[in-house]
Amino acid sequence: MKALYFDGERAIYREDMPLPVPREGESLIRILMSAVCSTDKEILKGYKPDFTGIMGHEFVGVVEESPDPGLVGKTVVGELNAGCGTCLYCRTGREKHCVSRRVIGMEKHDGCFAEYMTLATHLIHQVPDGLPAEQAIFTEPLAAALEIPSMIHIDPAKNIAVIGDGRLAFMITQVLSLTGADVTVIGKHEEKLQQFSPYARTAVKADDTYEYVVEATGSPSGLLLAKDLVRKQGTIILKSTYAGEISIDMSYMVVNEITVAGSRCGPFEPALNLLNKSLVKLPPIELYELKDYEKAFHSRAFKAGFKF
Amino acid sequence: MKALYFDGERAIYREDMPLPVPREGESLIRILMSAVCSTDKEILKGYKPDFTGIMGHEFVGVVEESPDPGLVGKTVVGELNAGCGTCLYCRTGREKHCVSRRVIGMEKHDGCFAEYMTLATHLIHQVPDGLPAEQAIFTEPLAAALEIPSMIHIDPAKNIAVIGDGRLAFMITQVLSLTGADVTVIGKHEEKLQQFSPYARTAVKADDTYEYVVEATGSPSGLLLAKDLVRKQGTIILKSTYAGEISIDMSYMVVNEITVAGSRCGPFEPALNLLNKSLVKLPPIELYELKDYEKAFHSRAFKAGFKF
Repeated sequence: MKALYFDGERAIYREDMPLPVPREGESLIRILMSAVCSTDKEILKGYKPDFTGIMGHEFVGVVEESPDPGLVGKTVVGELNAGCGTCLYCRTGREKHCVSRRVIGMEKHDGCFAEYMTLATHLIHQVPDGLPAEQAIFTEPLAAALEIPSMIHIDPAKNIAVIGDGRLAFMITQVLSLTGADVTVIGKHEEKLQQFSPYARTAVKADDTYEYVVEATGSPSGLLLAKDLVRKQGTIILKSTYAGEISIDMSYMVVNEITVAGSRCGPFEPALNLLNKSLVKLPPIELYELKDYEKAFHSRAFKAGFKF
Repeated sequence: MKALYFDGERAIYREDMPLPVPREGESLIRILMSAVCSTDKEILKGYKPDFTGIMGHEFVGVVEESPDPGLVGKTVVGELNAGCGTCLYCRTGREKHCVSRRVIGMEKHDGCFAEYMTLATHLIHQVPDGLPAEQAIFTEPLAAALEIPSMIHIDPAKNIAVIGDGRLAFMITQVLSLTGADVTVIGKHEEKLQQFSPYARTAVKADDTYEYVVEATGSPSGLLLAKDLVRKQGTIILKSTYAGEISIDMSYMVVNEITVAGSRCGPFEPALNLLNKSLVKLPPIELYELKDYEKAFHSRAFKAGFKF
């Protein structure tokens, strides 16, 4: 089959990859569409030095074989993190934090930049009838935004700042706007900020302080700005990951009783619900043939991906 | 009157201080007993360079004059932070975070190492009948421990580590043990740890990971240990303040979805309730004459203070 393979250093387009064989409990999925995430680009830069295999973790597909006969023939999306099933984290509803987890397209598990992929059946979520693949493809990044209200009680009477004007910030802004809270997006790029204006105030420079500050810039400076913007007894939500340490005055956090919460992958079902109810508006995905992967990786579209 | 006055550099015992005159809304309190906190010692080391005035913020007293006639003659304790009453923080139940707050014994407000003190009447709490001053004197540090369950939902089914074996850690351990949760205290001093054994497991070295980790060491290394001990999706509660910044890998917090919550002064009423119900056991306070303040400051007792 066709697949985009990462050999540990670079991406290679191959047409000779063998069809994957499901392990026990896994389903075989025919990929309809898959999308490029910035994490995929990070992998090419060395983010996952131990990984070799098929790249990609955002997809919409059709189940071809499954231990669950009700799933066969259904259009589905799927979660990234396949836990061991027996450790503390797997036993306490935190499979995505399993220490020996496999992660599709990233860690000990082939991904979805291919015609077929296998996935643990319990990680598969059915796409509601009538929801087009072009929308369902956003389930995973939208779930990452939904991890914020999943982890933290958002009081809609309190104001929120989202720092960042990229794709993740856009998802987060839409999700948090649905709470009814007053949301301000603070970004560097006037032209990028324009797409946020139906959902939130936008500003290049903050002129208030905020009860919740979401840091979604992807840069260490975002945390320092968040610290300046958050109110006493407020909450900073960190969505950015970056290499290296950052120096911070933790006594400031104690004296001002600030909470800093790290937040990562999120729940798929509410993401599918929001998409199905058209409560989240997303630009069209720009689709390429898999062999043109370099174009997709360098696209400046809101979202680029592959059609199979 | 007698008072211990900080002139910006050192503590001076004086007998010539004028009786304080209550401002509008304030009550006049005759101090029965006051206690030394490590913050007082920090002030002598330069923690509050702008402060001059009477030191001390932990006290039990009797109201002599008050706009609330029901308070006169009553035994009381009182909160530290007197807000402006009009700013965002004062208007939203966060008076202790008022930017222009006065803090007794620390900031623009004389403290309780004196025969008399004034305090905003709404900051005064009546001591339950029959609760001796030797117990009520612990209200303020116990309230600081209670700020943890006040801020954070503690699930009693989840385990807790308290890092530190000092006075604050002792208060915190007792409060958190009352939830029913499995609490482990991790300290450096075997002899100090012994006093925790009725309330919690104790260990010089941790051999597990924890859902909640309370950092109460007073040292920056405590946060790094907390990061090693906390489970994924767990919560670190910071109670220590120390000068300077600390370098930390924030991406670790994001990837593992760890929450770090700063926590400071807390609610007085539940502290008085716990003391009144004898649900918290505290060693006797060691009492000195005010003129012997150096002995009190250097005492190695669990708590030292002054009797008037």
